[in-house]
Order: sequence, then C-alpha cells, then structure tokens
Amino acid sequence: MPDTTRTPAATSADRATLRAEVDHFYAIQLRRLDARDARGFAATFAQDGFLRHETRDEEVVGVAAIADTIEESFRGTDGWVARHWFDKLLIEPIDDETVHVDYYALVSLTDAGGEVRFLPTCTVKDVLVRAGETYLTARRTIYRDTPG
Amino acid sequence: MPDTTRTPAATSADRATLRAEVDHFYAIQLRRLDARDARGFAATFAQDGFLRHETRDEEVVGVAAIADTIEESFRGTDGWVARHWFDKLLIEPIDDETVHVDYYALVSLTDAGGEVRFLPTCTVKDVLVRAGETYLTARRTIYRDTPG
Amino acid sequence: MPDTTRTPAATSADRATLRAEVDHFYAIQLRRLDARDARGFAATFAQDGFLRHETRDEEVVGVAAIADTIEESFRGTDGWVARHWFDKLLIEPIDDETVHVDYYALVSLTDAGGEVRFLPTCTVKDVLVRAGETYLTARRTIYRDTPG
Repeated sequence: MPDTTRTPAATSADRATLRAEVDHFYAIQLRRLDARDARGFAATFAQDGFLRHETRDEEVVGVAAIADTIEESFRGTDGWVARHWFDKLLIEPIDDETVHVDYYALVSLTDAGGEVRFLPTCTVKDVLVRAGETYLTARRTIYRDTPG
Repeated sequence: MPDTTRTPAATSADRATLRAEVDHFYAIQLRRLDARDARGFAATFAQDGFLRHETRDEEVVGVAAIADTIEESFRGTDGWVARHWFDKLLIEPIDDETVHVDYYALVSLTDAGGEVRFLPTCTVKDVLVRAGETYLTARRTIYRDTPG
Repeated sequence: MPDTTRTPAATSADRATLRAEVDHFYAIQLRRLDARDARGFAATFAQDGFLRHETRDEEVVGVAAIADTIEESFRGTDGWVARHWFDKLLIEPIDDETVHVDYYALVSLTDAGGEVRFLPTCTVKDVLVRAGETYLTARRTIYRDTPG
C-alpha cells in the first residue's frame, strides 16, 4: 500500500469538522458565482488572492481584478444558468490558518428551454485561509481535463 | 467580507454531525424515489408535509397526495432510470427539532441502451423535522433553473 | 415510517467521522483510476479483493487481476479523461474493521475538444476493510442502471 493513501496527521474527526466548514464555504462561494454575482464571489477571495487557469496560462490577482474577470466570463454563458458540481475533495490542513483542498469540478449549463450541457471537467487546487469564523480563497488553480 | 459567509451559531462539529444525518436521510429518501417507490418516498414526508414546484406553481400537501403525484410523475420517465445528484448543501439548524437545507439538484436519466440525459438543474429548499432517530421532510420547495 | 430509515446503532458523530475517512479514501482511489494508474488503483484493494460487474456477470479476484482488467478497460476510453462522481452514500459500520458503503456513481468523459459525455449511471456496493490508518476495498460490486 503506497504511503500516499495514508491518512496524514489530521485525525478523522478533525477532517470531518474541516469538511463541514469547507463544504459550507463552497456552498456560499459557488452560489454567488452561479448567481452571476461577480463582486460577491470575488469577496470570498483574500485581498491579494489569485485565480489561475493553468490550462490557459491566465492568472488574475486581487479581489477587484477577480471580480472584473468573472464579470467578463459571464458573457460566454448568457442565456444559461451555470451550476458548479464538486466531488472527490482531498482536504489537507496545513496549519491552524491554512487548508489545502483539491477537487473535481463539473459545470452544468441549463437554458430557458431546459436543455442541459456541460463544460469540460476540471480539477481545482485551492489554498483556503481562515478569516474569523469562515475562510477566504488565497489561491485557486484550475486545470482543465485534457487527454494525456 | 459580507456577513452571509460567516459560519452562524452552529459550530463546525455540530454541522459535521448534522451533515452526516442529513446525507444519510437523503441517501435513503432519494433511493426510494429513484426506485419508483412512490409510497416509500412519500413516507419520508411529515403527515402534513408539502411538496411545491415553485416554477410550475404546483403544490401537494400530505403523504397520500404526495404519493399520488409522484406516482403520476413516473409516467414521464418510463423507460429511464432516474438518479438524483445533490451538491452545495447549506445546512442551518433552526432548533433541536428543525433543520433548513438548501441544495443544488441534478437528475440524470439512463435508458436501456445506456444513453444518459439530464433534466434541467434545480435548487431545492427543504425544512426537515426530527422524527425519533431520523428526519421527515416537512416542506420541500423546488426551483427550476431559468436564465434571469 | 419504515424501519429502514432509522439511523442504526452508529451514532451521527461516528457516521460523520466515518464519512470523512471514506470520502478521503475514495478521493485517493478514484484519482488513481481517473489518472489511468491501473496498478495504483488495484493497490487500494485487499490482496484477495474482488471487483464484480453484476450486470455483465464479470468478476476478477486479487490485486494483480484487477490491475490487468482495469488496464484493458482503459482502451475503451482512449482520448477521453474519465471522472467518477459519487453521491447518496449509505455508510454502515459493520464492526471496527469493516464498513459497508453503497453509492450512486456517474462517469463523465471529456475529450481534447472539450466535449463531455456520460457512461450509464451505476450503483455500487463496497465492503471496505481497515488497513492501518486507511482502508482497502475488499469487495466492489457494480450494478449498471437498467430500466426495470
């Protein structure tokens, strides 16, 4: 059994609590994105947070720039309601302030006629930092799935 | 950072425990629906529970009426196996007896030939009430995603 | 309310902890499968573990045979990135060493052009056994959804 499957220092009870916090954070963060609230979504990033599309080699830094980029990106899905679906979260506490989360992401788009289509699947690597009783995204890196 | 991202009074450990209970309840409830067991599904609602499709402005009240409505709805998917996929659960304990749950829902349909299609995505607002060691759905309101 | 919705002997807190462990295990196991690492995936099974496709009446036993079968199965999805999506997990601790997990599974395939398609949905029954600080799959039985 390779070491990488070993449950690390974090106990399972810790991980259950962290998972509840992280899920709650994403439930709020992604609702804002899917509601096309670019400013509200950007506000869930740290002031100097960054959002990087690895595949496109595009990166934006800071809450204001993230809001602008997201606002622009909405043009590509006018007439569709987007929903982000996450799975297979790997949650690793780094210290009391920092959590690494790695997950699968699928985006569905539903139009007025009820047609559903999907954007290419991605994996995402997040660095979350504690901010009072919630989290902020310090770094998000998105990797679009492309056959090797 | 807007207040709405603040983790409310519920502690994270509470939320982890609640999440386990709520997930377990849905795993049982939705298996019944996807197995076309209308009566078994309706039995997971409170006696005076209601099921409301906000978008269609349709509402049924009570276990017997819910069973009949669900039974009828199966005609629309004859020849397909439905599976309900939930994500982005927002779980808010209201008091010791009541939990509000808000989530994304996606329904896949698989036919005998293996073709897979999807119904329009929805969001759902549930009021769950404790019933001994499990929950019952007191109210379910379904909002079909429609571009604004 | 039928007895089957009753939360069994496992407390909700236990179930939350178990869920965190099981989710973590699957996050690692399925990443290997989706990365086309047949050997790494097979290594998450017990030495005498088995993988059974109930619908095709096919069964392989043992880590080496599982690796070979999985390696072969990759040919069917050359040119696509697969992602496994799970939901509606029913987690039942049997004893300190054994957990039964029953879940919905959906497989997405994304090609180089960004097209996304889906394999027929399945339900899966797993028997997981504790192995130090993680789990191994002792038995996996896959049931492809077929209209009744």
